Amino acid sequence: MNIRVMGKSLGTVLGVGALAMMPSLVVCFIYGETPWPFIASIALLAGLGLSLSCIPMPSTPIYGRDGFAIVALSWLALSFFGGLPFYISGVVPGMADAFFESASGFTTTGASILTQVENLPRGILFWRSSTHWLGGMGVLVLTLTILPLAGGSSLHILRAESTGPTPGKLVPKMRQTAKILYGLYVVFTVVQILLLLLAGMPLYDSMVHAFGTVGTGGFGIKNASVGSYNNLAAEVIITVFMLACSINFSLYYQLLKKNIKAVLTDQELWFFLGTAGASMLLITLNLWGSVFDTAGQAFRHASFQVASVMSSTGFATVDFNLWPSFSKMILFFLMVIGASAGSTGGGIKCIRALLLFKIARRSIIKALHPRSIHLVRMGDRVIEEETLTEVLTFFFLYFGLFAVSSLCISLEGKDLVTTISSVVTTLSNIGPGFELVGPAGNFSSFSAPSKLLFSFCMIAGRLEFYPMLLLFAPTFWKRASL
Amino acid sequence: MNIRVMGKSLGTVLGVGALAMMPSLVVCFIYGETPWPFIASIALLAGLGLSLSCIPMPSTPIYGRDGFAIVALSWLALSFFGGLPFYISGVVPGMADAFFESASGFTTTGASILTQVENLPRGILFWRSSTHWLGGMGVLVLTLTILPLAGGSSLHILRAESTGPTPGKLVPKMRQTAKILYGLYVVFTVVQILLLLLAGMPLYDSMVHAFGTVGTGGFGIKNASVGSYNNLAAEVIITVFMLACSINFSLYYQLLKKNIKAVLTDQELWFFLGTAGASMLLITLNLWGSVFDTAGQAFRHASFQVASVMSSTGFATVDFNLWPSFSKMILFFLMVIGASAGSTGGGIKCIRALLLFKIARRSIIKALHPRSIHLVRMGDRVIEEETLTEVLTFFFLYFGLFAVSSLCISLEGKDLVTTISSVVTTLSNIGPGFELVGPAGNFSSFSAPSKLLFSFCMIAGRLEFYPMLLLFAPTFWKRASL
Repeated sequence: MNIRVMGKSLGTVLGVGALAMMPSLVVCFIYGETPWPFIASIALLAGLGLSLSCIPMPSTPIYGRDGFAIVALSWLALSFFGGLPFYISGVVPGMADAFFESASGFTTTGASILTQVENLPRGILFWRSSTHWLGGMGVLVLTLTILPLAGGSSLHILRAESTGPTPGKLVPKMRQTAKILYGLYVVFTVVQILLLLLAGMPLYDSMVHAFGTVGTGGFGIKNASVGSYNNLAAEVIITVFMLACSINFSLYYQLLKKNIKAVLTDQELWFFLGTAGASMLLITLNLWGSVFDTAGQAFRHASFQVASVMSSTGFATVDFNLWPSFSKMILFFLMVIGASAGSTGGGIKCIRALLLFKIARRSIIKALHPRSIHLVRMGDRVIEEETLTEVLTFFFLYFGLFAVSSLCISLEGKDLVTTISSVVTTLSNIGPGFELVGPAGNFSSFSAPSKLLFSFCMIAGRLEFYPMLLLFAPTFWKRASL
Repeated sequence: MNIRVMGKSLGTVLGVGALAMMPSLVVCFIYGETPWPFIASIALLAGLGLSLSCIPMPSTPIYGRDGFAIVALSWLALSFFGGLPFYISGVVPGMADAFFESASGFTTTGASILTQVENLPRGILFWRSSTHWLGGMGVLVLTLTILPLAGGSSLHILRAESTGPTPGKLVPKMRQTAKILYGLYVVFTVVQILLLLLAGMPLYDSMVHAFGTVGTGGFGIKNASVGSYNNLAAEVIITVFMLACSINFSLYYQLLKKNIKAVLTDQELWFFLGTAGASMLLITLNLWGSVFDTAGQAFRHASFQVASVMSSTGFATVDFNLWPSFSKMILFFLMVIGASAGSTGGGIKCIRALLLFKIARRSIIKALHPRSIHLVRMGDRVIEEETLTEVLTFFFLYFGLFAVSSLCISLEGKDLVTTISSVVTTLSNIGPGFELVGPAGNFSSFSAPSKLLFSFCMIAGRLEFYPMLLLFAPTFWKRASL
């Protein structure tokens, strides 16, 4: 780990943070709100960023683990400094709350400690949603370019390997890949804003909800989330964009290159669509007659909530915490599975879930025929044993972090469903869970240490564990150099 | 799969079942109860058993998968026929209930659909507890001799490999191993009965509780389980024996051979004792002052309940469902971990939990140093990559079965904690869960299909999944021959 490289990278990140606050400052002026929380924050970030970026770069090469460290510290620093406007403006009660809210934004989780959002300054709410947009973009670059470099996993680029933006060599390719991804991301955002405007949503609301959708974050500006608009067209648009942003972005790259076959034969895509479709159908059947009188109503809310949870966005049109157990149980497992790799969504990712099923099936066949050899395939490609072990280990890491975190959170003495679902929803970057942290609830009643632990879970989940877990490895710190 | 071998083996199993009912028949006579449920059941089992055992054995060799099939069908058949006395006597309302109760007995789970046990015939209750004793013995032989043969895993005999009863060649070694295990098991039972008698428990009660303890089953004869005796000495004896029967039985074999070092260096043993000890301590601290006034009371009940859950017995001295979330959360994770491999207890087993932690730690080191090679060790032994993959896959299978089963059970519309914990407690062969299925509750309110699914979970968990999962593999049935 090279301290100078880290300092310099952090400087850049803070500079970007300062720039990213500018639009929110403009919003403050437009609505005649006090600009000081942003002016102070921007000054601090810009000052720190400039100072750090003056550090001369060393000539030593940058290793994968340096990338991990930079990523982990960037998210931590952004979560801390991004929370300053919340804290300075006084909309949150304390530093831990500001950190939580900001971490929830940058990790595109969307869990909130705010009990009332409708009366808050519009500049603050704009910044809150901007963090989703920034975070979503950061994640795309991260999962498609940095993570695969350092022993983490090559799952995110399975499809893109031969034709797409291959992250073979860090610096030159990464810039190119990032540029394509930025472009797609911006186009998605602009198109969604335009569509929401057409659906009758005000410009400010359209922008905020587009930020929350393409980043699969879920922060809104209404206490009852998207449900408060009661606007079917907007719901459909948001549903479609939530699903669209849960698909591996390299598939869009393939589409641009007119490589339709690569898209149609993508097993993760079909797994994602199949799981989402089946969940929508089963929940519709479960709700029809019990919660909603018509099949149409049941499907409208089932499809929105499934898309919201599976994409790890967390918007809501109704309080799914009041739904029957079967529907809740489906949503609970969708929270664990999450979106596709290489998207802005969270969870363990569809490709891992799919591989886990394939591994399980193979193990049964192996028990029957111990002497024969069985390979796990994805399309026409054989997946290496090492990758399979990584996937299995990742799944256990998810469970392990869940176990340790929920044991700590259970010290709060809240009911088990709140305890378990609050940890799962933060680890998977969804937003709402069940009971106290359901769509109608929030995280305000937790203590400051728990909020910091949740923030850790959100960042760890967002970065696919390893960058954050490395911070606990003693050898990681031993290798620090200047 | 050879149908004739299976038929013949089933015949032997049913014959043993008929013999095993004899003592319960004697109990009926002693207490002047109607003997017909047992006479009818014994006649049926003996008749079927004798007919099947007349099948001539084929000369073809027996494969591991035949062992799996025999084991799966034996447990299914025993669960069905073992439930006959319950059904004929009318103490259970239907066939599904009889099957559930009997499966719960033979799998040493101890979950019950009976709402009141204190007024039931003593012969019936004696049979109910006998199934634990038989099942525990069956499991010992199964896990230490049959499972390791067929690609499942060699974890159960890690320690015993060089000096102990090695299951290298099936028939001769298995007999020898089984004999040693039977001997140990009988000695444990007799010693516990004597100690409970000394502690002031009546003979009948002592026998029933010893059966439930050494089999780590948990069926009792009081509605409030062991708590209704309020006998500290008995609680201590049962605690010690629950823990003793959760330790790999091959370690006792090592003790007999005066191989103390093999015992003291057994990592699973220390993991088991450490986890149990830490859990007892943490729960004591959590309960002291909040539930119990004195540290002594808190420790008394914490240690009993931890031993009961971790050993997968399921006896209770108090209703832990009323404990604070932290204590419940610890118990929940203990339910998943369970006892040691090669014991009569359930769960994923301590050795797997320990290996999972080692694998997780290695994956973090690997992310830091992708180019270096890292082996996972157990004591002075390097664990093969294939075994590690098996352990990881086993963990996912546990989760997969949990997910599918709890989705089905959630159709009952019960609360999420009841739904989740009822599946975990049956998969891990514990007995009680939380809420409706807590120590003060039972499984009576579930529908017949759910009870059959729970029975499947209990048997699948008991047989470490593969024998039951093979029944779903089409190729398994295709290979049937006469």
